Amino acid sequence: MSAALFEHPKGRLVGVGTGPGDPELLTLKAVRAIENADVLAFFCKKGGSGNGRGIVEAFIRPGTLEMPLVYPVTVESDKNGNDYRDAIAAFFDQSAKDIAVHLEAGRNVAVLSEGDPLFYGSYMHLHLRLAPSYPAEVVAGITAMSGCWSMAGLPLVQGDDILSVLPGTLGEDVLTERLSGTDGAVIMKVGRNLPKIRRALEKAGKLEDALYVERGTMANSHAVRLIERDASPAPYFSLVLVPGWKTRPAGGETP
Amino acid sequence: MSAALFEHPKGRLVGVGTGPGDPELLTLKAVRAIENADVLAFFCKKGGSGNGRGIVEAFIRPGTLEMPLVYPVTVESDKNGNDYRDAIAAFFDQSAKDIAVHLEAGRNVAVLSEGDPLFYGSYMHLHLRLAPSYPAEVVAGITAMSGCWSMAGLPLVQGDDILSVLPGTLGEDVLTERLSGTDGAVIMKVGRNLPKIRRALEKAGKLEDALYVERGTMANSHAVRLIERDASPAPYFSLVLVPGWKTRPAGGETP
Repeated sequence: MSAALFEHPKGRLVGVGTGPGDPELLTLKAVRAIENADVLAFFCKKGGSGNGRGIVEAFIRPGTLEMPLVYPVTVESDKNGNDYRDAIAAFFDQSAKDIAVHLEAGRNVAVLSEGDPLFYGSYMHLHLRLAPSYPAEVVAGITAMSGCWSMAGLPLVQGDDILSVLPGTLGEDVLTERLSGTDGAVIMKVGRNLPKIRRALEKAGKLEDALYVERGTMANSHAVRLIERDASPAPYFSLVLVPGWKTRPAGGETP
Repeated sequence: MSAALFEHPKGRLVGVGTGPGDPELLTLKAVRAIENADVLAFFCKKGGSGNGRGIVEAFIRPGTLEMPLVYPVTVESDKNGNDYRDAIAAFFDQSAKDIAVHLEAGRNVAVLSEGDPLFYGSYMHLHLRLAPSYPAEVVAGITAMSGCWSMAGLPLVQGDDILSVLPGTLGEDVLTERLSGTDGAVIMKVGRNLPKIRRALEKAGKLEDALYVERGTMANSHAVRLIERDASPAPYFSLVLVPGWKTRPAGGETP
């Protein structure tokens, strides 16, 4: 036998969706990936310990090497600036290099991603950099929007409905147009955009139906019809849900 | 003490998302709900045993009462006809009544829903009929689209991307317009609509990027660039994914 047969194989990269917050919404596959990880990497803000890590805490094996990936910028940064783009790209490059060291040494690395890894998740930037060179797998997670409409018991779309997922950062006119031309909608990144979102929904004739959800599926979550919500500032991670239902069969009751 | 204190309470209704097919993509909460159910209800076609039931089979406690809810019509029916609407509404009415008998008797009923219960799922029709009268809860599930893009390792949307979920049943012009005006897209109900979807993607300049996925996360799943797929008929439950990424930071590689 040649010596090559005894060389250790490369480690495996797994992007693990942690779901929206409730640890019970982890999948069996996610729990197994966390339990089998030699290295557990997770994104966090400076001084924080990471929401993703908090969700999976009960399943981390003693002895697992933890690897915080600390964002160089916060959600408040100007995301359209070149400085932001350069800083964040350099951060993902460096994070990928740090993870590659473990993969080369044959260690399995699980990277936590809140919600679903490939749906607005930071993990995807590492996946694109590492998956061409190492065995890589993505474990789907429950999205925040899915956690929110489930918690609220709000049927979102059915039959031939069109669903639009819209960032609240869009301009008021674009938002109004998009909301007018869809059946169901999920508006993300609400935060300081809430007054504008409210106006756009009103112009699109959909304010009546809209539900505002804050911190969906977490302990302190909160859902209220948007029309009944006061004008106080909304946290960045809140959502507005607009149910579709244009083809609802006769006989059902409205939500 | 009054006798009323000894009356049994009403049973609890739980809509359980089973995810897209792989039993490992069940959530911990879904497994617990199935294990704790006195009655396990699931939708199925005449002569079938239900995809949802197949996914959760390993977790059904012996002694659980099983309750198949047999669709009166198939996916091939004319869904725009009044006969279809009447038949399906009567079916949901009757199913809700049958479940209510168990809930009144204090039995907990779990209703399986493939994917996520409130995202194009049949469970929502029962929820709307029963949740006003009984304690009800919805357990979010991994959607088919999420299972598909995870299996394919295809980052779908990020940053300020707009995502459109479109039924393949839309007319060619509408489909083309929608695809032109979105970043990421998921096209459902592909089946016999595949040639039309292909033409719409080409007109929208997005055929190059589109990925075709068949039976995502199941044992016999299959993903291929749509442009490379032959013209053979597609099964109804296949998806087309179009990645967004307009705000991808510099430095990343394209998928």
